[in-house]
Amino acid sequence: MANDSAKNCGLDPDNWEDFRAEAHRMLEMSIDQLQQVAERPWQEVPEAVKERYAVEASGSSTAEIVDRITDEVLPSHGGNIHPRFWGWVQGTGLASDLIAGMAGAVINANTGGRDHGANYMERAVIDWTRQKMGMPEGTSGVLVAGTSQATVIAFQAARVRVMPQVRKSGQGTTRLTVYAGQGIHNATRKALELLGIGFENLRLVPLVDGQMDLAALRAHIAKDRAAGALPFLLVGMAGSVDLGTYDDLNGLAEVAADEDLWLHVDGAFGAWTRIADAPWRGLSDGIGRADSLALDFHKWMYVGYDCGLVLIADEAAHRSAFAARPSYLEAAERGLAGGDPWFCDYGIDLSRGNRALKVWTALEMYGEAALGAAITDNCRLAALMADEVTAHPNMRLAAPVVSNVCVFTARTDLAPEAQSLLNSEIAQTLQESGEAVFSTTRADGMVMLRAAITNHRSRAEDIHEAIAAVARLAQAG
Amino acid sequence: MANDSAKNCGLDPDNWEDFRAEAHRMLEMSIDQLQQVAERPWQEVPEAVKERYAVEASGSSTAEIVDRITDEVLPSHGGNIHPRFWGWVQGTGLASDLIAGMAGAVINANTGGRDHGANYMERAVIDWTRQKMGMPEGTSGVLVAGTSQATVIAFQAARVRVMPQVRKSGQGTTRLTVYAGQGIHNATRKALELLGIGFENLRLVPLVDGQMDLAALRAHIAKDRAAGALPFLLVGMAGSVDLGTYDDLNGLAEVAADEDLWLHVDGAFGAWTRIADAPWRGLSDGIGRADSLALDFHKWMYVGYDCGLVLIADEAAHRSAFAARPSYLEAAERGLAGGDPWFCDYGIDLSRGNRALKVWTALEMYGEAALGAAITDNCRLAALMADEVTAHPNMRLAAPVVSNVCVFTARTDLAPEAQSLLNSEIAQTLQESGEAVFSTTRADGMVMLRAAITNHRSRAEDIHEAIAAVARLAQAG
Repeated sequence: MANDSAKNCGLDPDNWEDFRAEAHRMLEMSIDQLQQVAERPWQEVPEAVKERYAVEASGSSTAEIVDRITDEVLPSHGGNIHPRFWGWVQGTGLASDLIAGMAGAVINANTGGRDHGANYMERAVIDWTRQKMGMPEGTSGVLVAGTSQATVIAFQAARVRVMPQVRKSGQGTTRLTVYAGQGIHNATRKALELLGIGFENLRLVPLVDGQMDLAALRAHIAKDRAAGALPFLLVGMAGSVDLGTYDDLNGLAEVAADEDLWLHVDGAFGAWTRIADAPWRGLSDGIGRADSLALDFHKWMYVGYDCGLVLIADEAAHRSAFAARPSYLEAAERGLAGGDPWFCDYGIDLSRGNRALKVWTALEMYGEAALGAAITDNCRLAALMADEVTAHPNMRLAAPVVSNVCVFTARTDLAPEAQSLLNSEIAQTLQESGEAVFSTTRADGMVMLRAAITNHRSRAEDIHEAIAAVARLAQAG
Repeated sequence: MANDSAKNCGLDPDNWEDFRAEAHRMLEMSIDQLQQVAERPWQEVPEAVKERYAVEASGSSTAEIVDRITDEVLPSHGGNIHPRFWGWVQGTGLASDLIAGMAGAVINANTGGRDHGANYMERAVIDWTRQKMGMPEGTSGVLVAGTSQATVIAFQAARVRVMPQVRKSGQGTTRLTVYAGQGIHNATRKALELLGIGFENLRLVPLVDGQMDLAALRAHIAKDRAAGALPFLLVGMAGSVDLGTYDDLNGLAEVAADEDLWLHVDGAFGAWTRIADAPWRGLSDGIGRADSLALDFHKWMYVGYDCGLVLIADEAAHRSAFAARPSYLEAAERGLAGGDPWFCDYGIDLSRGNRALKVWTALEMYGEAALGAAITDNCRLAALMADEVTAHPNMRLAAPVVSNVCVFTARTDLAPEAQSLLNSEIAQTLQESGEAVFSTTRADGMVMLRAAITNHRSRAEDIHEAIAAVARLAQAG
């Protein structure tokens, strides 16, 4: 009844020598892309290419596939690999991702559990990061898509700590309240929505000099307690999305201890000033006192998308929020079903890809010193951009640059609405010309240009030329 | 102030020719692994290798990294690439993953949003899948890590439909109830826990011949309504994790329509009988009537980990559960900030890797016919295994094999506890010897051997030899 032929349904290559040759050709094209990245800025995807993405599923030779990927896929990247890309907060990727990507594809690890190398490597990557962040031994962690996922996991652990029955009985009538500074990343709000806590229970505390006002925070908490709510979670910012500012993390840790709150820190990119030089390293002082910390490797560690991490100081709290093993997942003493603990007990996913390998390869290949130097240099470039903006007679910063984010308006001599329009227009024009990628945000009631420099390929001359291009367009506009 | 040297902090290779040579060497080693996969079964990771995973982060040459990955990483895979791996439900991976992996690493796409090729490709992959599943035009979707994530997203969309204020106000006192057949995958329970709905509100409906008893289902719903609960969600199984059985999906769709419930189908692996031959294709009849469908590409489409998909028939319901765009993510008419809709508005993640490329490459390279033939053949092999078990005088199936899952005990002439011990011992011994990988589950009050065949490399002789090995160990035990 079953098929005895090795050819009839096998999907492995019929001719391995052909496959090898084509794979090597794909590798050449891929390395060309990396090497020539400065000459390959973002460009709009041609309509004809979009149409050719439609799935035919009729079967092709490896050679045809390599041709199509070379012609239709490699040029249609998102721009973040280019030296003058500073839009949103996006990492550039690393040559080490290519090495790790090949090995990872043929291992095809499912890191949800069981006893195999990728899980041991993930523990090694997590432990190194824990040490760099200054979190205690025994801290648990799990690699995830990014800080949004990490936030969901951390908040659920925090909730289970104060509501041990919530997995069984649901949120119910307990009104949990949450505190964060104004300008907190939307990941916090989205996580509260998903968990059934509700965003109306998030208190946005005013900032003083870019940091949560601790007196206002304490007042909010007292008011909520008086109204019968259960304050349970304090969210600190290590690198705010709009301006790259940092809360006083030691101050937050003291409030959290006094008020018996779980302290979560959003360190998506900003946590990595831990391996930068002074003065930037000091921005994240106190981060190791968090109960939970969310951070990404794909932003300011430059590793390929996607890879984030949640660290939770109390491993028991972490497990009690997620662990569950039905009979088809029972562990064994020996064999493949060994290898406890399993990562599926620390998060949402039962099937999980191998994110550890690309992080491990980057850490081992470049080393902490080179990665830290790149982060430090990004901060220097943001300061340089701020200097150039400040020196320009007709530009203005939204706020002082404290880390790697620089927000500014290209002309101050127009009405706010006209400045908004001009800044938006400049961002789009520079994206289309390939000269530089800024994104935009709102500050002081208008749209401004925003550069978040998490790009190991950027140099001082890139900053000079980008600001010159902004000035040219501002003058023309 | 900033660094002008192209060498000083850049992480790109200093010497591109060296890097090229080493990358080609990594590719050779990777293809060797693929080609020799039958000779490389799972093996326990040596303690010395585990220790060498510890992150030093002191920097290494590319050559050293390639050596370490070859020696320490490639052999330490999880076994699921081997032709006789049938443990849990794990896919094997494809040679096309290697091609896609190289291109993906140098594009480094963040598919959370913006206007670039990977997002258009993801839409193409989703639309092809929607058509195969028979869901209506206008269905929305988003690629995710796997069915666990897809389940969370679908359930939140279902909840927002009946509780439009839940994102703002939280779950509160509304008691939502959920219905699924006994044996539903744990992903359903974990999602209800995470969302703050609570697993005590999940009703496990008895099965008749492996399918949810529709009369019992209606009785449960009526009882919950009478008690003041709000029944909102019905979860169907297309391929149960323990036995590979399918609910009567058309029957469930009728109950859902009558009772105004959201019908979600867990089709993690089983949805793909849609492209198999008769009679297996018929198992998933009616799947296109689901309000939401969760499925994986990394199981029975053999694509590398991780990649799942959630499809939601009502795009507005999907968006209303997740869409949120703060000012730093505002869309633009032109440039990189164009490309609406953005995938971040359809799920949890704002940063997202490029899962579409490996799926697209597999579909275009192998084609639907070859993928469907592999799925069909896996069902034939499960039937063959069932025949061999049934023909053996001392083995017994837990239940008839309906798709690709075969559960059995290796000896019937022992007390249940002794059968449990023996079956566990056999699973572990065969894993360690490299002869075959079964996992275990509980059925009829004992631990049994379980094969879930989602492996394009398996042949009839693999089934013969594995069952012979089980018989040998059963006799010896």
